[in-house]
Amino acid sequence: MAKIAIIGLGLIGGSLGLALKRSRLRDADIVGFSRSAATREKARKAGAIDRAASDAQDAAKDAAIVIIATPILTTPQILKDIASVLPANCVVTDVASTKGQVMRWAAELLPAHVGFVGGHPMAGKEMSGIDAADAALFEGRPYCVVPSPQADEAAVNVLVGIAELVGATPLFMDAEEHDSYVAAISHLPLVVSTALFSLVRESAAWPEMSRLASSGFRDVTRLASGSPEMSEDICRTNRENVVHWLDRMIAEIRRYRELIEGDDEEALLRAFAKAKRERDEFVTSGPAPRRAERPTDAGISVSDLLVGRWATQRTREIMKALEKEPPQQRPKE
Amino acid sequence: MAKIAIIGLGLIGGSLGLALKRSRLRDADIVGFSRSAATREKARKAGAIDRAASDAQDAAKDAAIVIIATPILTTPQILKDIASVLPANCVVTDVASTKGQVMRWAAELLPAHVGFVGGHPMAGKEMSGIDAADAALFEGRPYCVVPSPQADEAAVNVLVGIAELVGATPLFMDAEEHDSYVAAISHLPLVVSTALFSLVRESAAWPEMSRLASSGFRDVTRLASGSPEMSEDICRTNRENVVHWLDRMIAEIRRYRELIEGDDEEALLRAFAKAKRERDEFVTSGPAPRRAERPTDAGISVSDLLVGRWATQRTREIMKALEKEPPQQRPKE
Repeated sequence: MAKIAIIGLGLIGGSLGLALKRSRLRDADIVGFSRSAATREKARKAGAIDRAASDAQDAAKDAAIVIIATPILTTPQILKDIASVLPANCVVTDVASTKGQVMRWAAELLPAHVGFVGGHPMAGKEMSGIDAADAALFEGRPYCVVPSPQADEAAVNVLVGIAELVGATPLFMDAEEHDSYVAAISHLPLVVSTALFSLVRESAAWPEMSRLASSGFRDVTRLASGSPEMSEDICRTNRENVVHWLDRMIAEIRRYRELIEGDDEEALLRAFAKAKRERDEFVTSGPAPRRAERPTDAGISVSDLLVGRWATQRTREIMKALEKEPPQQRPKE
Repeated sequence: MAKIAIIGLGLIGGSLGLALKRSRLRDADIVGFSRSAATREKARKAGAIDRAASDAQDAAKDAAIVIIATPILTTPQILKDIASVLPANCVVTDVASTKGQVMRWAAELLPAHVGFVGGHPMAGKEMSGIDAADAALFEGRPYCVVPSPQADEAAVNVLVGIAELVGATPLFMDAEEHDSYVAAISHLPLVVSTALFSLVRESAAWPEMSRLASSGFRDVTRLASGSPEMSEDICRTNRENVVHWLDRMIAEIRRYRELIEGDDEEALLRAFAKAKRERDEFVTSGPAPRRAERPTDAGISVSDLLVGRWATQRTREIMKALEKEPPQQRPKE
């Protein structure tokens, strides 16, 4: 048996536990820790973990794999708590929505014999907490894999394996790329959705207006109902990129404002038509959801994962392909 | 039998036909017109209309009730086409997303013996056209009722009756209130959603970013997939209100930008927490969907609708309640 520690048993930590238990992973002893005793008990009863640990250090001790799934800003303290008990070749990963800051903390706080590979499953829900955990949460979703300079191929392989076991598609990128991409595709929508809701909600006419709200208003403001702590953490740890995109959003709204005020009716119609065409294309060209990986009838063991027997070939191919690509431009064009 | 004409057989016109036919409305001869022969045939086959007319005038001739469900900017031409054939006491209504302009056109182009009552069912879908028509589209949705100064109580009653027959909840307001409310709750989200999509889509890193897009990005940008013609019409006919709200949105994004750049962590967290609390409250306090009205086992006839036997009492109560209220403030605070 090999120990997999999940520290933090909220929506993501709990769902990873459920998805790994549902997968064909053999010989895994999944140990979880949450500060809340009630959460630990719920996670155990739901089958997200085999047993609960008494603290983060207890969970991480002798673990082959440690998954940190706590709020981003608690990561340094967790890394400090567990650093001294991690065995050689232990693979540590996280699930935070921003990666640059986490990678710096890991480089600073983890010993050299540990391989840190940042992770970010692109999946979520309006609800948070263990009660919302779902074994199918990651199916068909991208899973960002962000290797640290210290992580060797075997360590990277472990996270690729985990991503595939839970039904996700691993995508390699560096921390800077990750943070600039998600600033546009995830954090900007979060702030815009929240700002739209708070603006309209503050209006004196809200009681009358809200009666007229249709599904459009609900959908566009949905992200305002996310976890406030997570939203704040995201903005704090990806501040520069988020501010950059907010400035660009202001400029884009101004562009529409000018089209609406202007007399060129064709230009406004063209802008709406272009957005529709491109969004319809984006929606229809999306990847089909895939089921969690069931590599063989007999399943794979944690030690297969660790020595990379299973995923190595795939990782090698991906890394080789990456090497061939010219250096990518920063998305701040 | 009394004739109900539906001019324009797209999503809204087609759905109104289906919903009226499904309701317990008796003695109605529902005649529809669309410029497209294929659409007319589809509407007839789908059961949205009893028969098709050869043009708008043919549809409206001798009609007791005329529902105009064409793009807003075609309304003046339709009104001109039908004005001379409308019988005395005919009730004309529309479904346009903006009301001020439509009310002015009706006052100018319709004869005095016709009662115009503006209508706006707050229901929609990403898809448009007769193929997307749905008898349940209006269930539980608000239906704005905007009486013209010339419309008498019986005319207003007819639209209240139609709204209730299709399962919607009639809400009385004047055109100016309507246009300022929907600018915030409907047109602002439309432009913001479109601008967010077009901004991110134009990025050089779109191929990489789009692979990371989660359900949040899809939901918040959903309105970018609406009908470009309808979006343009909305912006043109409600320009002043839309521009007003775009300016306020820019200011609100700036407020978040400053909170994110600032050092007061509590203030940013408070802003996210307030938005979440208020949106959760809004979502959970929403009205429960209601089924289309089935007033009696025997149903009601169009003549009941016209003489107001059915809805009069309700309309009187609503109008009385409105008279008691102090004059409402404009929502531009």
